[in-house]
Amino acid sequence: LHVARFFVVGIDASGRAVLQGDEAGHFARVLRLGVGAEIDVFDGRGAMFRARAVTVGRDDVGVEVVRPISPAPEPRVRVTLAMSVLKGDKMDEVVRDATMMGVAVIQPIVATRSETRLATVARSDRHARWLRVAIASVKQCGRAVVPEIRPVADLHDWLAAPRSGRLIVPVEPSASNGLAPLGDLTPSDRACIAIGPEGGWTPEELAACRTAGAGLVALGGRTLRAESAPLVALAALYEAWHVW
Amino acid sequence: LHVARFFVVGIDASGRAVLQGDEAGHFARVLRLGVGAEIDVFDGRGAMFRARAVTVGRDDVGVEVVRPISPAPEPRVRVTLAMSVLKGDKMDEVVRDATMMGVAVIQPIVATRSETRLATVARSDRHARWLRVAIASVKQCGRAVVPEIRPVADLHDWLAAPRSGRLIVPVEPSASNGLAPLGDLTPSDRACIAIGPEGGWTPEELAACRTAGAGLVALGGRTLRAESAPLVALAALYEAWHVW
Repeated sequence: LHVARFFVVGIDASGRAVLQGDEAGHFARVLRLGVGAEIDVFDGRGAMFRARAVTVGRDDVGVEVVRPISPAPEPRVRVTLAMSVLKGDKMDEVVRDATMMGVAVIQPIVATRSETRLATVARSDRHARWLRVAIASVKQCGRAVVPEIRPVADLHDWLAAPRSGRLIVPVEPSASNGLAPLGDLTPSDRACIAIGPEGGWTPEELAACRTAGAGLVALGGRTLRAESAPLVALAALYEAWHVW
Repeated sequence: LHVARFFVVGIDASGRAVLQGDEAGHFARVLRLGVGAEIDVFDGRGAMFRARAVTVGRDDVGVEVVRPISPAPEPRVRVTLAMSVLKGDKMDEVVRDATMMGVAVIQPIVATRSETRLATVARSDRHARWLRVAIASVKQCGRAVVPEIRPVADLHDWLAAPRSGRLIVPVEPSASNGLAPLGDLTPSDRACIAIGPEGGWTPEELAACRTAGAGLVALGGRTLRAESAPLVALAALYEAWHVW
């Protein structure tokens, strides 16, 4: 018995919330639900409730809370994924998968070999698109937390800014000779994982990551596709640190 | 300096090999290479060589070996991935990703909730298609081993047949209460990982897996997409057993 899940911007003290925009459209026009329908609502910050529709308008649906629901648990590590912006749909895949794996923050970055420029990404509608992808993934995986998606940044600017948690940088096999495995890093309750673009990190970028205190690690000897590396790195981290 | 990689069915004792079919077409018509061109060839069983083209025909390209090349290393565990056949392109993604992660064998299976039937898959051209996807992924990730892709089988028939290595069955969060984490399983040099279809395993299937000696494990509390579960399970296994 799967109850449809909806994102709401907030739930007020009296237990009322409003589905807006796409969410309202999904309720009424896609699922053809009406007053009295029971749904699950989550606020994107960790709260989830069974709720009942009380008003159904064209652009908003009012609901009242019935009872709290336990969402899928968050991992016991707060991960920021600093992801080099990939071409087209590949970045959508990364946002979807990282959300499913429970990351707290997604920081899109532009690196030397990125096949796009900071200004191009910044003036596109990709941030809004990634947020929609993340919300859809939250519904599918059962979380009640929508990861924060930060504005795109240059790698070096991001490395220079304050960060909480150990920075972990997976490195492609050709550059990873002699690197320690990820499991050798001291576990912590916070981590940043930075993943390079399709063409990999430049030697200068790897040096800058080292200078910024990063632990450079190998994820096996096979060359991973850039869009698969986040899933592999997150699974390895959770297993190594026992923080699933 | 990336040298194009080609699959050859075999390399004879005098160091000669022949690119056939799609491989020959890729050499001559796509990359427009000719006699004297240097390429890398692998036999799908672990050998890789730098080679030079000596004859270029319409449907085959003869090469002679120049020197051995070190391919990407195989993981230190021989994994059979028993994968419930997914719809359309999703199974291609799984074959691609599992190959990239270094699995030795892919065993397509049909389970109760699979959205296809054994006979439908068996009489389709999907086996040949999966093999092409695996070869393309081998080229991308740098392995010289093409995983064996077995004929599709019914889950129960497959469970009843002899198997080498511990059977590991990731279970969705709703059914995984109280399960041990994957890291609790005793490491081995062989393992079988069985992944359920989009709708998950039925209770009867889980019972049959237990009877067959499977270790049922959870991969965190979020619901994973079926096509992502193999990557997550393989990364967790390699990390838990230190066999990257």
